[in-house]
Amino acid sequence: MSTTNVKAFGTESREADLQQMNIERRNVTAKDVEIEILFCGVCHSDLHTARNDWGGTIYPAVPGHEIVGKITSVGNEVSKFKVGDIVGVGCIVDSCRTCESCKQDLEQYCLNGFTGTYNGKDKHLGKQTFGGYSEKVVVDEGYVLRVPENLDLAAAAPLLCAGVTTWSPLKHWDVKEGSKVAVVGLGGLGHMAIKLAKGLGASVTLFSRTPDKTADAKELGADEVVISTDASQMKSVAGKFDLIIDTVPYVHDVNPYVSTLNINGTLVLVGYLGPLDPFLNSVPMIMGRKSVAGSVIGGIAETQEMLDFCGKHNIVSEIEMINMQDINASYERMLKSDVKYRFVIDMASLKS
Amino acid sequence: MSTTNVKAFGTESREADLQQMNIERRNVTAKDVEIEILFCGVCHSDLHTARNDWGGTIYPAVPGHEIVGKITSVGNEVSKFKVGDIVGVGCIVDSCRTCESCKQDLEQYCLNGFTGTYNGKDKHLGKQTFGGYSEKVVVDEGYVLRVPENLDLAAAAPLLCAGVTTWSPLKHWDVKEGSKVAVVGLGGLGHMAIKLAKGLGASVTLFSRTPDKTADAKELGADEVVISTDASQMKSVAGKFDLIIDTVPYVHDVNPYVSTLNINGTLVLVGYLGPLDPFLNSVPMIMGRKSVAGSVIGGIAETQEMLDFCGKHNIVSEIEMINMQDINASYERMLKSDVKYRFVIDMASLKS
Repeated sequence: MSTTNVKAFGTESREADLQQMNIERRNVTAKDVEIEILFCGVCHSDLHTARNDWGGTIYPAVPGHEIVGKITSVGNEVSKFKVGDIVGVGCIVDSCRTCESCKQDLEQYCLNGFTGTYNGKDKHLGKQTFGGYSEKVVVDEGYVLRVPENLDLAAAAPLLCAGVTTWSPLKHWDVKEGSKVAVVGLGGLGHMAIKLAKGLGASVTLFSRTPDKTADAKELGADEVVISTDASQMKSVAGKFDLIIDTVPYVHDVNPYVSTLNINGTLVLVGYLGPLDPFLNSVPMIMGRKSVAGSVIGGIAETQEMLDFCGKHNIVSEIEMINMQDINASYERMLKSDVKYRFVIDMASLKS
Repeated sequence: MSTTNVKAFGTESREADLQQMNIERRNVTAKDVEIEILFCGVCHSDLHTARNDWGGTIYPAVPGHEIVGKITSVGNEVSKFKVGDIVGVGCIVDSCRTCESCKQDLEQYCLNGFTGTYNGKDKHLGKQTFGGYSEKVVVDEGYVLRVPENLDLAAAAPLLCAGVTTWSPLKHWDVKEGSKVAVVGLGGLGHMAIKLAKGLGASVTLFSRTPDKTADAKELGADEVVISTDASQMKSVAGKFDLIIDTVPYVHDVNPYVSTLNINGTLVLVGYLGPLDPFLNSVPMIMGRKSVAGSVIGGIAETQEMLDFCGKHNIVSEIEMINMQDINASYERMLKSDVKYRFVIDMASLKS
């Protein structure tokens, strides 16, 4: 298979900083589009993969799955896109297309495992996939999204992961005009959850451990901020919410939030992967038909639906633009939650 | 308020055996019906209440909330029933009727607390309510169910609690022709879950720790029995089930069952109230949009729906009939799971 060398930014080991390197991209096959990457959002998964925090990282690792760019070449059977189109690529660049999940547009739950945009198994070149910290990417058109051109393209990049990760549960659990939604955690995911839930017509509450995020949350659209460490504030929202989007990425007690669910309410974990410690108490779940659930990113069709919705409602992420060369320092800032609310790399900086 | 003395069987303290006593029943008010109790099923809650296992028992305690009987008197505004009708009373004899739950026919989730058939707060007499281990009961017609007369009335009694407790989640989570349902635990609840899920057209699997229940489960209608202690059998049903009804009443690890849920599947706890120990792992929930939920009994309208369904499909509980005087020995047998699958008291024995 013919390939082209492109500049990228990645790491050769878990201890090493990210640095410039060259990687191979396949030349477009019949169904592929080649995308010049303009902007790439920086997700916590990028950092965890670079540092092998979850195990399984194959080096060299080139992160990045919040990609916005311009099509520079198309394969001869591409029907959905043409050169010059502004497009996005999220966390998924392929899937089996034949399992029950794929047939239902739920590629994120592909029973044979979707191909991650980075650190996935590249079906074409046989190696690991390389993500958006690079000049170009080549992707099957079936996994490429159209980005509404009225949006700020840099600020649209995080929609491809943070956006759809919160959109998918909002839609699956049928949030609409009048729904009561709460969001736990105000980071990359949390701030998108507020904007999207608000866009869908819900009343939105942010749970925060400290009052210092109140002004920011309200500016993002939250109707209310409840301080989760204040028992009387928590009691005032007992039994209130139809849906809680819990974006906290580390272990935490979800029981106090379950108590704020309405009858038939659901708390959806989108951030924390691991054992629910302390023990989840079944009593309020049984006595109120409440659910605790999980959700991961979203399918291709619903990613497009989310982007179209954002185009219509002019919703983008709040971002801080960085140069590619700033990535290692930015990872350190992310670990301290020192970002409002997403870093986005101006990929022009990689050319310099 | 005028009352009548009736014979009952109850206990004066947590340590004492149940014995015959007299209790007061109100005489019928405008909307009440008086029911001569013919049969009363014996639920685990009866035993836990009698022995104050959950705290909060008010003595004397007269258990029993799986009541089938015949109407002997009606108040002058009763419109749904007449003297001679065969009726049932389950776990709920009153609720606030005005909250959002009651307005949606979800009296089991009454936001002001429903009135339990026993050990509830009697709005008429101000004391605790007394259950079905008695000659008669007086209940507002809004909380009385019509029992299809083609059913074996003794075997129909457990439908009022065990039946609706499993019916409600089967309906809420939309079990229908072709659904794949699993049941954990083969007792009073579990055997009803098998029969009702099968009646709804689902394929039904029983999870059992030992093979000795296989023949019985298949006779009850299970298509398959999976031995939960056998790793290879568990693996063979990974990702299979749309809904799991978990009837186990004591603490147990639900993680192995979550792994057998299909994408979008739900495990519903109906038996165990308490902390989920060991820790529930969020990873399979997030990677498959799976839920863990709880559910308690059912509303009045859906109890009637369930009884009508059982009448049409000739579904009743498997029972062992006992005399009222056998109740203490029967409690001991229940603690050893030595009953297939529900004791039902022939209330004629209380007269003797």
